[in-house]
Amino acid sequence: MQTLTPDIAEQSGKRAIERCHTLSKISEMDNGILRQYLTEEHKRCNQVVADWMTDAGMTKWQDEVGNQWGRLESKSANAKRLIVGSHLDTVPNAGAYDGILGVMLGIELAELINSTSLELPFHLDVVGFCDEEGTRFATTLIGSKALANEFDPQWLDITDNKGISMAQAMEEFGLDPSKATDAALLPESLLGYWEVHIEQGPVLEDQQQALGIVTAIAGAKRAMLEFIGQSGHAGTTPMHLRQDSLVAASELILAVEQLASDCKNGEVATVGFIDAKPGATNVISGKTVISLDVRAQKDADLDILINKIQQRAEQIAKQRKLKLGWQWTHAADAVDCDENIMDLLQQACSINEQAFNSGHSPKLPSGAGHDAMAVAPICPMGMLFIRSPGGISHHPSEAVIEDDVTKSIAVLYTALFELQKKF
Amino acid sequence: MQTLTPDIAEQSGKRAIERCHTLSKISEMDNGILRQYLTEEHKRCNQVVADWMTDAGMTKWQDEVGNQWGRLESKSANAKRLIVGSHLDTVPNAGAYDGILGVMLGIELAELINSTSLELPFHLDVVGFCDEEGTRFATTLIGSKALANEFDPQWLDITDNKGISMAQAMEEFGLDPSKATDAALLPESLLGYWEVHIEQGPVLEDQQQALGIVTAIAGAKRAMLEFIGQSGHAGTTPMHLRQDSLVAASELILAVEQLASDCKNGEVATVGFIDAKPGATNVISGKTVISLDVRAQKDADLDILINKIQQRAEQIAKQRKLKLGWQWTHAADAVDCDENIMDLLQQACSINEQAFNSGHSPKLPSGAGHDAMAVAPICPMGMLFIRSPGGISHHPSEAVIEDDVTKSIAVLYTALFELQKKF
Repeated sequence: MQTLTPDIAEQSGKRAIERCHTLSKISEMDNGILRQYLTEEHKRCNQVVADWMTDAGMTKWQDEVGNQWGRLESKSANAKRLIVGSHLDTVPNAGAYDGILGVMLGIELAELINSTSLELPFHLDVVGFCDEEGTRFATTLIGSKALANEFDPQWLDITDNKGISMAQAMEEFGLDPSKATDAALLPESLLGYWEVHIEQGPVLEDQQQALGIVTAIAGAKRAMLEFIGQSGHAGTTPMHLRQDSLVAASELILAVEQLASDCKNGEVATVGFIDAKPGATNVISGKTVISLDVRAQKDADLDILINKIQQRAEQIAKQRKLKLGWQWTHAADAVDCDENIMDLLQQACSINEQAFNSGHSPKLPSGAGHDAMAVAPICPMGMLFIRSPGGISHHPSEAVIEDDVTKSIAVLYTALFELQKKF
Repeated sequence: MQTLTPDIAEQSGKRAIERCHTLSKISEMDNGILRQYLTEEHKRCNQVVADWMTDAGMTKWQDEVGNQWGRLESKSANAKRLIVGSHLDTVPNAGAYDGILGVMLGIELAELINSTSLELPFHLDVVGFCDEEGTRFATTLIGSKALANEFDPQWLDITDNKGISMAQAMEEFGLDPSKATDAALLPESLLGYWEVHIEQGPVLEDQQQALGIVTAIAGAKRAMLEFIGQSGHAGTTPMHLRQDSLVAASELILAVEQLASDCKNGEVATVGFIDAKPGATNVISGKTVISLDVRAQKDADLDILINKIQQRAEQIAKQRKLKLGWQWTHAADAVDCDENIMDLLQQACSINEQAFNSGHSPKLPSGAGHDAMAVAPICPMGMLFIRSPGGISHHPSEAVIEDDVTKSIAVLYTALFELQKKF
């Protein structure tokens, strides 16, 4: 059948949420959630998830970098792999759902298919990625990049804050570091990658929608900027003789807001960090450092906005006779979601509209990075967002609405059903 | 005679500078100058200064709070006291001249008078104040306030960062804390207070003038402000759904600059401290704290400027839907310098114009606080500023131009000569 009954979807959604709570107790912190790559907690989490995969009728394995896999095996010859999943690691003091919920919903999907004895013409592979957040080592998306053959062996030398290298941690975990690159998948074996994730932003809540279909994962660039002026006595230096680096930075911060707000395609730009030296009440600031984070769905839009910000920064420095320093610290290109997967998810939302009031499920970009962007180079990928109350994530008050999760499993099931019909 | 010869003035100025360097070696820091109240260094400094006072023909004593005094005794019956001085303590990593030079010039003045055998109709009292900077205990101007009967016995309980109370430190220094208030002077015994000080600002340098006559010590108010918005993900929160506390603070910082610059009477306003929380590149700032320092020569002007800044802050908070917190941390009224002393110094500059090219010696307010403001309630006070190269103070690169110091001693001498003529 094409749709789930409301009671079955509800049961499934409830269990996915419960399991997020169960996993949240596997934590390195006493009063909060923290689960980092290659820790004892990572191992225990994978074991629990593997057991749930078995219960759902899947075969299970852990790959060469520590991703946890389960497969609902297809009987078709030369069956390709449809991967559904997200990540199982967390930031410090995390919420219970970021990443985790997407893995739990993958297992629920397998369980539902398994219980209907529907024969899939492809393998349904559920993955729990080992590291998306990059909390332990200074690199992110380790699990999903490994799939796309982008595990860099140089990472093995990166040490955590206790001085333990990734290679050493892999060995202690029971993995062979020299085999890490073997986690790469053959693109021709893949049908696609689906990821359900909490939105981590306020857009769906603002539009009063449970679910959203992701159009692209925004490209992002980050820089550290510094304005160097002249510190001086706050009482004895007349206004017209000042070279105040904090006022210059403030002028740019306002301009960043204005320039991003003037954009038409959902571009965002943020200054989240500021440090004004010497930082005393009665001293004019001689040097101010700020961060800059700019994101856009299209790389061309990103570059246009960044150019405007750079021009403005140079203009401010020139007018105020300050020196400007600019250092890029991060760059990631925008990644489009697959049109076919977007259509399929849209169709599944429509089919479920009556039973689940899944609404028009707006399309929206993801401003945050996800495993899907790392997997995109090797197969078509798509993402379904679940509303985040208050837009909150990476925080203990991160939440989901139970009914939204019910809708997400219903949509996921229908999308899978529609996909297998095409074979 | 009315004026010094250039060679005598030069000799005197040179020695004053040399003595500043000698005292700079009496320091709590190995690679910089630090001399705090009631330390071993304070004691040694007073002893050295006392010896110089003796050499200049003065009697010497240390008062009940640790100020070092020297007197060139008048033979007149009922002679009043003209006090010339400044402070001997320093901030950490200080320059050599802030305060110190004013004391050294007082001693030079006494020496010059002593060597001419001019009979003064008043005592010439030179004072080296024990604490102006307030580096050790959380209160400033201890030495000069004590003269004005404003030593608060509650200060005795204040502890330094090692937990030593002021009372304890006084005892270790050899003072009796219960007698601290006895340092107060009888106003009717006082003729006036003169203080020579480096400008600590760029005005005289900008006007290419060696000396300036201070019109008033600016009133100052300080506050800590906080904007409370909503932190959020820098990638997933659209611009129009943000309540970014750092952008709000930036808007106010720009407004503070503009509002102060629009004032007509030399008002200044500064934001020197900023702290944006959580302070991460990829997180919108939820709470930003800034300092505010506003100064003006007239209390009325100060209040007008502060009102404008407050209105603007409230407007910004309202428009951006943020909460605004405002806490006053410091308030000092403006103190006018004595008109007669200003005229006397002006006259002395004019008399020396030909010999020393002391120029028109512009009148200017002091944006920084000085001992003179604490002494003002008990006697007429006046100040002479010496140009600060680069406007720099409270820093090892604090400097004076030797020729400027020569001019200052010439002007000081003539002013004293003209004053005694009036008796």
